[in-house]
Amino acid sequence: MQRLSRNTNIRVSLPAVCFVWQIAMIILFGVFIRYDEESDAHWVEFRRENNITSDIENDFYFRYPSFQDVHVMIFVGFGFLMTFLKRYSFGGVGFNFLIAAFGLQWALLMQGWFHALNPETGKITIGVESLINADFCCAGSLIAYGALLGKVSPVQLLVVTLFGVTLFAVEEYIILDLLHCRDAGGSMVIHAFGGYYGLAISWVLYRPNLHQSKRLNGSVYHSDVFAMIGTLFLWMFWPSFNSAITDHGDGQHRAAINTYLALASSVLTTVAISSMSQKRGKLDMVHIQNATLAGGVAMGTAAEFMITPYGSLIVGFCTGIISTFGYLFVTPFLEKHLKLQDTCGVHNLHAMPGMLGGFIGAIVAAAADESVYSREGLINTFDFEGEFANRSVGTQGGFQAAGTCVAIAFGLVGGAIVGFILRFPIWGDPADDNCYDDEVYWEVPEDEEAIPPVLEYNNHMIHKHQDISESNFSVEQS
Amino acid sequence: MQRLSRNTNIRVSLPAVCFVWQIAMIILFGVFIRYDEESDAHWVEFRRENNITSDIENDFYFRYPSFQDVHVMIFVGFGFLMTFLKRYSFGGVGFNFLIAAFGLQWALLMQGWFHALNPETGKITIGVESLINADFCCAGSLIAYGALLGKVSPVQLLVVTLFGVTLFAVEEYIILDLLHCRDAGGSMVIHAFGGYYGLAISWVLYRPNLHQSKRLNGSVYHSDVFAMIGTLFLWMFWPSFNSAITDHGDGQHRAAINTYLALASSVLTTVAISSMSQKRGKLDMVHIQNATLAGGVAMGTAAEFMITPYGSLIVGFCTGIISTFGYLFVTPFLEKHLKLQDTCGVHNLHAMPGMLGGFIGAIVAAAADESVYSREGLINTFDFEGEFANRSVGTQGGFQAAGTCVAIAFGLVGGAIVGFILRFPIWGDPADDNCYDDEVYWEVPEDEEAIPPVLEYNNHMIHKHQDISESNFSVEQS
Amino acid sequence: MQRLSRNTNIRVSLPAVCFVWQIAMIILFGVFIRYDEESDAHWVEFRRENNITSDIENDFYFRYPSFQDVHVMIFVGFGFLMTFLKRYSFGGVGFNFLIAAFGLQWALLMQGWFHALNPETGKITIGVESLINADFCCAGSLIAYGALLGKVSPVQLLVVTLFGVTLFAVEEYIILDLLHCRDAGGSMVIHAFGGYYGLAISWVLYRPNLHQSKRLNGSVYHSDVFAMIGTLFLWMFWPSFNSAITDHGDGQHRAAINTYLALASSVLTTVAISSMSQKRGKLDMVHIQNATLAGGVAMGTAAEFMITPYGSLIVGFCTGIISTFGYLFVTPFLEKHLKLQDTCGVHNLHAMPGMLGGFIGAIVAAAADESVYSREGLINTFDFEGEFANRSVGTQGGFQAAGTCVAIAFGLVGGAIVGFILRFPIWGDPADDNCYDDEVYWEVPEDEEAIPPVLEYNNHMIHKHQDISESNFSVEQS
Repeated sequence: MQRLSRNTNIRVSLPAVCFVWQIAMIILFGVFIRYDEESDAHWVEFRRENNITSDIENDFYFRYPSFQDVHVMIFVGFGFLMTFLKRYSFGGVGFNFLIAAFGLQWALLMQGWFHALNPETGKITIGVESLINADFCCAGSLIAYGALLGKVSPVQLLVVTLFGVTLFAVEEYIILDLLHCRDAGGSMVIHAFGGYYGLAISWVLYRPNLHQSKRLNGSVYHSDVFAMIGTLFLWMFWPSFNSAITDHGDGQHRAAINTYLALASSVLTTVAISSMSQKRGKLDMVHIQNATLAGGVAMGTAAEFMITPYGSLIVGFCTGIISTFGYLFVTPFLEKHLKLQDTCGVHNLHAMPGMLGGFIGAIVAAAADESVYSREGLINTFDFEGEFANRSVGTQGGFQAAGTCVAIAFGLVGGAIVGFILRFPIWGDPADDNCYDDEVYWEVPEDEEAIPPVLEYNNHMIHKHQDISESNFSVEQS
Repeated sequence: MQRLSRNTNIRVSLPAVCFVWQIAMIILFGVFIRYDEESDAHWVEFRRENNITSDIENDFYFRYPSFQDVHVMIFVGFGFLMTFLKRYSFGGVGFNFLIAAFGLQWALLMQGWFHALNPETGKITIGVESLINADFCCAGSLIAYGALLGKVSPVQLLVVTLFGVTLFAVEEYIILDLLHCRDAGGSMVIHAFGGYYGLAISWVLYRPNLHQSKRLNGSVYHSDVFAMIGTLFLWMFWPSFNSAITDHGDGQHRAAINTYLALASSVLTTVAISSMSQKRGKLDMVHIQNATLAGGVAMGTAAEFMITPYGSLIVGFCTGIISTFGYLFVTPFLEKHLKLQDTCGVHNLHAMPGMLGGFIGAIVAAAADESVYSREGLINTFDFEGEFANRSVGTQGGFQAAGTCVAIAFGLVGGAIVGFILRFPIWGDPADDNCYDDEVYWEVPEDEEAIPPVLEYNNHMIHKHQDISESNFSVEQS
Repeated sequence: MQRLSRNTNIRVSLPAVCFVWQIAMIILFGVFIRYDEESDAHWVEFRRENNITSDIENDFYFRYPSFQDVHVMIFVGFGFLMTFLKRYSFGGVGFNFLIAAFGLQWALLMQGWFHALNPETGKITIGVESLINADFCCAGSLIAYGALLGKVSPVQLLVVTLFGVTLFAVEEYIILDLLHCRDAGGSMVIHAFGGYYGLAISWVLYRPNLHQSKRLNGSVYHSDVFAMIGTLFLWMFWPSFNSAITDHGDGQHRAAINTYLALASSVLTTVAISSMSQKRGKLDMVHIQNATLAGGVAMGTAAEFMITPYGSLIVGFCTGIISTFGYLFVTPFLEKHLKLQDTCGVHNLHAMPGMLGGFIGAIVAAAADESVYSREGLINTFDFEGEFANRSVGTQGGFQAAGTCVAIAFGLVGGAIVGFILRFPIWGDPADDNCYDDEVYWEVPEDEEAIPPVLEYNNHMIHKHQDISESNFSVEQS
């Protein structure tokens, strides 16, 4: 494959995929998707029949504020976190937008078939909780995008998302339904899966000559400030992420508190390690933008358990350290020795803390005690009902650990397969020296220096952007 | 009118309007506005008398999260969407702020007089729903600002808002009360009205020599990223916009789901058309920033109806295409042949999708069926009570279509009149070659290049900003 | 003290403080902090025992949306408001993040000891309201940071926060518990205290030669747009700030309405005064970014009272004027004559409006009337129960005024002491000519001009950033 001469024209492929996909969605939604009883106009009757005293008991009011916070995390949080590159901010926030809008429709179907298919009517019914789960499902593919940022075409990203959402729904079904794990904030099903999925794809797509575009693989001052928008909205709303689909009442309440505390703790240890790592104690924006979030990832499973407030602080403490060390040592090691290029360091922010979060969940579950939870509380929290009524907490812990392994295995194997699919030379991915450059897939405006009127004659000379992918340019003179 | 010599000094007119207006508001609020029974300290008594079992039944808890989302859309969404110009970001976000803060007070009064005036006491009572409606009312004028961006003075914008809010309240009264239309998300009353209002004003204010400021009528890299903040907050919170004032329970729930789906669908078709329109398949930020939102606009009326999930996808599918085509072909056509300069393309994002949304609402209403809604659900959704108890769904559809026409007529006629008022040479609007330039109305800091210490001697030479509106400058030498 | 040779190496001190602090927090949380009955797994039992009919009655659902809004204000609002400096955006948003994450843990403990310590078990129980209060408590220190922005090291900021949170908890206990004042939005306990605390520190740390870094003490175009993100999120969510911990029902509802109105009014008078102050009527971004918020600060105490809608408008009207005048005249006066350098003008945005807010609260409380509130409403609003059952509204007004004085005294005296502690030459603060420069504490990426490939040879010559704090540099040549 001669990468330098790659054809990045996606004028046929991108519209074709979008149209085919969207039409398929309309047809499948027409066949399968209906409103659930809380969003259907029959709600008034449903309320009366089920003795629901007030409209406020509609699940909408329990979950909609959290849904909107999760929604912000998916689109602004993930999107702006990926604007840190000096010339890939359009691609960072724009393709994130495309992936999520594309993935959430497929997620509603896939998750619906596995979880909400009414066997009598053959229909899937959706409500606000379905929307949250669809957003969660997209998060897996968005995490994978983090490892691929700047190196793939939008068409490839849609393929990543198509398979990512599909794999997600299957592993989620295995982990949550078959193994009966609890994973409210998705340490396992979202972060460990998504992280390893992206890493495996990136490993298969290894580009030995990527250093040619090193010039663009870094930030500028203002792009780092843009990325802080992403960081902060993720950080602030992570308590909503981890509590969005937990049990009504104490479940949501406790998950929010635990996540809030773990995140605060992560910030302090991230700052400490970042400062220690530089000879004059200066902080590195890469660490502050990412490792501060590790506490939220690692609390994804245990947040709804009685992990205790100080337990949450300990989780944040450790994962802040581990994640920052990851950025300092593991990412360079992976690139040099494992030939794995991880643009955003998703290994350090999602894969490793997600895996840890899975095992933390297993330990906390195994240590659960009726005196701490109360009898009813224990049943509620771990959903020990029906066929799982007699499961012990120790067994639950074992299944939680097994679930973590399932998520990782799905990520690695699925990612490797998808990676090989993406190596076909038909997807319009950029040549090595056009990576991390918005010029390839976006109409980029002229530079800022073009503004001051005094300099106008000058700008003509130096700032005409050339179509880099055509690999020729001429300097226009006034 | 010799535009080059225009006086843009607003040191008397802007403060005068602000002070007179604010003092008038204080007096009128003193005479008319009071707390409603849910925000008044008598609430404890009111609860007891009305057998309301819990404080959570206060409308505040049904609507406040949606209100805050709408509030973000008005100030950050609309505001940052208009920061895309290279040198008009202050004006974009700053005048948006001024318009909305100015308009919402007048909206509380105007809407109050038409909808919430207690005939016995002569008072208007307000609660959280009034705040949402006031924000909605401002949205009409903010949409109009999109067509005028960069070409008018802040004093003119206050005039636009004063008339805009007034016209809004009247057309809203006609459409919602007299015609008894449903329009929860305001496809008709907000978007069609606001869009045509702005277009009519812009048409009357046509500037034949505007090409002189073409240099500034475009974006730079970072201003496009700023605009994406606006886009995403609008996109994410549009489900709250369309569900903010719908019925408690299933109404809010369903409106949020439908809008969420329509928006997702819009993104895919916008990307497809944008990519098809460029010879190498590159995406255009103008389309991504705007046309992706068209699905939300077009669902403004039908979101609360049983349009079905796949129906929502179809609406988003079509409006994403239409809106992107609008940016590609209609805006240039309007400018060239109709002499209509529409800076933000509000025709494509608001006027056309809003009008479509009105007619979609009419069709869905006319097709409503008791078997789908249930008897009670139909009455609830369309408010077939009192004098409208016997209205058929077909009639309702006809009135919905009529309502759309009323909104458009108000926008066009009202806008033409306001446009003529704004042509008086007293408002301090900028000369043609100072359009799209913050220098006229803002103290603009020196340029970024002034930062690196090494270059300091250099900066003195080239970057002293001159007061452009005085149309002279001298290059200061160190 | 020879400031030019100051050692800004914080490689030992910053990590040491973070680690010691975080470990101390874990131990203290382990000893003291537990879930309250609404976030504990015993909630199901608690519900049954207390005849709570539904999970929706959990305080989580009354307060979580407001909590998240407050959280956004603390991290994005305060953080981005401080990005306005041309080369201190990393420090503005990043140290804000560090302070808040550091402070909120200590706040949970300090406020817990004073307000929520169970004397039997010796434990503090926390829920969503505790999280809001912890965020509020941090706000005091973040306001103080505004006066110190660019002039102190992160280690100094942690000292400011440690003492700031401690002082806050004590003055809050005195004002709210001993004096039994009402101060839902914290005009007194947050803004007046935080503002005077920061001013007193800044006064003690006066730098006579700071003009040396004047070059960097200003904004650039895009940093002003970033700051508007902070401004708008503060402005939009201030109704949530002032209503977050007020009484369920009408209390929260009314506080949100009053704050919404006061803020709108502030915008108009800020614009008016800003325009009047410049010879061509141009607006100043410093005013728009800050003084527009003064109405929210000044409503912090009175928002939950029956101040009436027009009363709220009057408060916003006056404070918008006063705050803008502060930026025009008081800040320069303080710097010149009182040797007080206030980077963000916290005097005008927090100290003065906070003090005014305290006295406005006193007046409104003293004027409270049973006919306006109803008997029950008056008791509810002012919490006239237990030992305060017989307090008259006049007495309450007097205590409110006394509370304001207590807050100011704590700020001034505490700030002076902390200032003297910070003068020890061990904290790694920057030399005068390195103030307002991220280079000192952050790894700053190369400049934006480094991007266009055509200029690459050029960049090597001019844009290599030097470690300024070593006060030597050499121009590297290609």
